[in-house]
Amino acid sequence: MADRLIYLPLGGAGEIGMNAYVYGYGAPGKERLILVDLGVTFGDMDSAPGIDLIMPDITWLQENRDRLEAIFITHGHEDHLGAVGHLYSRLGVPVYARQFTGALCRLKLEEQGHPADVVRITGPRPEVTQLGPFNVQFVPVSHSIPESAALIIDTPAGRIVHTGDFKLDGTPVVGDAFDPIVWHDIAAQGRGIKVLTCDSTNVFSTHPGRSEALLANPILEWVMAQKNMVVATTFASNIARLKTLADAAIASGRKVCLLGRAMRRMVSVGLETGILTDFPDTIGPDEASNMPRGKVMLIVTGSQGERRAASAQLSRGRYLGLSLKEGDSFLFSSKTIPGNERSVGRIMNALSEMGVDVFDADDGLFHVSGHANRPDIEALHDLLKPEIVIPMHGEHLHLREHMMLARDKGLTSEIVVNGMMMDLTGDTLKVVDQVETGRLYLDGTVLIGAMDGVVRDRIRMALNGHALVSVIVDEDDNVLPDAWVELMGLPGRTRGGDDLARHIEGELAEFLESADNRTVSDDRKMEEAVRKITRQVAMEEIGKKPEVTVIISRLMAD
Amino acid sequence: MADRLIYLPLGGAGEIGMNAYVYGYGAPGKERLILVDLGVTFGDMDSAPGIDLIMPDITWLQENRDRLEAIFITHGHEDHLGAVGHLYSRLGVPVYARQFTGALCRLKLEEQGHPADVVRITGPRPEVTQLGPFNVQFVPVSHSIPESAALIIDTPAGRIVHTGDFKLDGTPVVGDAFDPIVWHDIAAQGRGIKVLTCDSTNVFSTHPGRSEALLANPILEWVMAQKNMVVATTFASNIARLKTLADAAIASGRKVCLLGRAMRRMVSVGLETGILTDFPDTIGPDEASNMPRGKVMLIVTGSQGERRAASAQLSRGRYLGLSLKEGDSFLFSSKTIPGNERSVGRIMNALSEMGVDVFDADDGLFHVSGHANRPDIEALHDLLKPEIVIPMHGEHLHLREHMMLARDKGLTSEIVVNGMMMDLTGDTLKVVDQVETGRLYLDGTVLIGAMDGVVRDRIRMALNGHALVSVIVDEDDNVLPDAWVELMGLPGRTRGGDDLARHIEGELAEFLESADNRTVSDDRKMEEAVRKITRQVAMEEIGKKPEVTVIISRLMAD
Repeated sequence: MADRLIYLPLGGAGEIGMNAYVYGYGAPGKERLILVDLGVTFGDMDSAPGIDLIMPDITWLQENRDRLEAIFITHGHEDHLGAVGHLYSRLGVPVYARQFTGALCRLKLEEQGHPADVVRITGPRPEVTQLGPFNVQFVPVSHSIPESAALIIDTPAGRIVHTGDFKLDGTPVVGDAFDPIVWHDIAAQGRGIKVLTCDSTNVFSTHPGRSEALLANPILEWVMAQKNMVVATTFASNIARLKTLADAAIASGRKVCLLGRAMRRMVSVGLETGILTDFPDTIGPDEASNMPRGKVMLIVTGSQGERRAASAQLSRGRYLGLSLKEGDSFLFSSKTIPGNERSVGRIMNALSEMGVDVFDADDGLFHVSGHANRPDIEALHDLLKPEIVIPMHGEHLHLREHMMLARDKGLTSEIVVNGMMMDLTGDTLKVVDQVETGRLYLDGTVLIGAMDGVVRDRIRMALNGHALVSVIVDEDDNVLPDAWVELMGLPGRTRGGDDLARHIEGELAEFLESADNRTVSDDRKMEEAVRKITRQVAMEEIGKKPEVTVIISRLMAD
Repeated sequence: MADRLIYLPLGGAGEIGMNAYVYGYGAPGKERLILVDLGVTFGDMDSAPGIDLIMPDITWLQENRDRLEAIFITHGHEDHLGAVGHLYSRLGVPVYARQFTGALCRLKLEEQGHPADVVRITGPRPEVTQLGPFNVQFVPVSHSIPESAALIIDTPAGRIVHTGDFKLDGTPVVGDAFDPIVWHDIAAQGRGIKVLTCDSTNVFSTHPGRSEALLANPILEWVMAQKNMVVATTFASNIARLKTLADAAIASGRKVCLLGRAMRRMVSVGLETGILTDFPDTIGPDEASNMPRGKVMLIVTGSQGERRAASAQLSRGRYLGLSLKEGDSFLFSSKTIPGNERSVGRIMNALSEMGVDVFDADDGLFHVSGHANRPDIEALHDLLKPEIVIPMHGEHLHLREHMMLARDKGLTSEIVVNGMMMDLTGDTLKVVDQVETGRLYLDGTVLIGAMDGVVRDRIRMALNGHALVSVIVDEDDNVLPDAWVELMGLPGRTRGGDDLARHIEGELAEFLESADNRTVSDDRKMEEAVRKITRQVAMEEIGKKPEVTVIISRLMAD
């Protein structure tokens, strides 16, 4: 059979987060493969309580790891590289990235005990990485972290451009500007661009994106207008923003103190890799707490309301010797990611209770997005003139909107979601396989499947409470009538004011006293009967049916 | 001591939701009291998993119920009347409301088995309800539900205006318009207005509010542009919106089908009470499913992504014989309340997967808010010229912003949050007491305190999982070494691939075999030791510490 070019998203297509996209070229079923990005997403109480990180289920890739050439990481955000450390051992291939991104990859690998030298630092275009049928180049684009790159993936079937996350920013403050001339040239070479796999995050934003450089003046004016302590929070990885904030502090006669591990790490990696050359000197929290309040700016982690980050700690009181007071000012130089509204709101309100003036970026003065808006996406379509547009990095709604946008321009486009293996060889996209995909959860130190039932049981306990019943069967196979009931996450008292556990025990005693031998001798039957009675009694007494765990202990004769 | 006028919010001040405000007049500690509104708020997985409703803890009011004259309900939203049925028996005083609101109150009372005749239907100003030192009038205002009212509360210490929820809408489609002349007169009477207790919900919205009537044309144009089945969702209580949607359907040659219990109930209460006079005839789901798709509009519940509402059901497949398909159109004629973004997003994406075109109100064409925006709040300040402004119905941030707005106009204003009893008699506000407040949770059919530990335990089980250990001590006070461990919401396997429960049992056996008599004879010590070992082993093997419940069964000699 003829060689073919395939595309298979394992994460990020039909969701925002945990990006992982496979490209392949070769004889069907024997294609050589590369993986672009290997990110995580974050759990929430609604869908994944207690889960530390969520990453794509890469079982298919693991089963085909002998065909995998390498992993390419487009940029240093968690949703693009966060799973590299956790999943590296399942793939065992080199990781290619540019310098700053590569340094972050190495930290991720080292944290999980892997050697740092699996990361191959790669320069931008014209440097080419040749692996099997692929020639891959990193092309600088602008985004909300330095050194973002799109990939040019040249294959015998044609040229693919995989944008990664990008925006059209000619003045990104730190890192590479988006250069339309470069992309014009890329599109003009050879047969042009066959496939554009393109970021869809902001397809619903109808105005053209704004440059990072536009923030410098409003932020400086804002800082100058504040009289006491100034605090600003943003994503630690948005180094351009950190620089804009810090520059504003210095220009208004303040010292800068960075709070939060991620914040200090990002700045130090930025300095080490040379992408950050002129960040102002900073002071530590001790020194900051001894300065006059009007002479300090804290730049802190926790813009999304993360419970353990510096902003949350400050909103709860003293943190590293620093505390906020009436008349201080706190700026969220960030957008709240959908789902984090309540956490962010809690912090803002706690600050308000202290008398701190809270400023957000809702009026657009203090934040710009890192993603291309709808007109910018259109501009990229026009600039690159691809034959095929594959919308990626978006929920289904985003992918669908992006597809319609591309089709309106007469381009071929389809919605491709996680698990759909597409043949891109011809003029149209064809589904050639459906691969099992899903999510892996990092729970403590263990990786579990999303469908293993662990999280389902947690959600059930959270919604319904948990009743535990211990039943003992003695050496003569007689069941002891006094079962023991313990409740967790359930009201102690019934509507009538009785003790609920004792009440259930009473009802169970009635059953156990008269239970026949066939039931007593069968763990399954006993358990079922005890569960049913417990749930019924609870339903009558408190109006809800708890989860029930029954432990039957059978005593052995000596 | 001289009589005084007091104000005490028990809910709604420092949060959005569960409104409950007490006013009192009389000798200190003997003031006669009225309660304005008695609403609920809704739980979420983050803070109140499994909780059906949240309402204010009214213990203080209960303890002083002999001083309570009545409850006044400003309008029919759940956050203003939702707790009336659940808490009525704790207060036992009449409930005053206008006709439509009163009909909704009666339904709430009947659901909980209380007589409907405790509700006294009251006409709008000039009708006056005289109770003790209070003369109370309902003054029609516009909002997103018909028959909203502000209250004029005349006391010997002066006139209070309590706005309830309001907006300045001269053309609200259904229900009462906001009439500035009426309010001008109210402010001009006697000594004018002493205290304005004022809705703060939209204080951060800087543009003037828009009228409900502005939606008719955009909605009609939208409906006419759709070819197949049209579905629209909004709050069931927004009867004006239901009418605008239904009118658009009829004008474009479609029949209207209402789906969802709340939707049908609101329309029927609207018709019964006469506030809704010209709602078009509707058809049932059977008839709708037999009509050509281009001839039907479904108006459905579930604009906030509620799992059991009609919109969620339709997004999951067939509902009452109706199902959506490629080419149908679904309009969210609503704003997503912060915290509901993920639930709404899930439904939108599920619809998108069916090929349904999803439209939201983000561009403002298909929804207007029911609350006064910042310029409207200012306009009300200017119109009423109160001596004192008390911001209410808002998170701390909102109250603070509203206070600053009032102070900028030279008005006296303070932030008063739940539990602060204020003396309003003089020119300034004085805190005279701090009352214990909090939240009551409706869990199934039982009311529990937010601090009872039930919800805390649920959250812990959801985050950490639950390990159950059963230990048996025999008739001779010897502990049986084979403890039984059951896990719920925990990975079954350790990082090394062992069975986690069996592994914990092994470690416990080692301990139990060598446990000394002092430990074995003491339930508390045994429990503590078993819990500690279980948590340690889990930490080593899976990297997290579960909640642990230990059941020690002591066998009795016959």
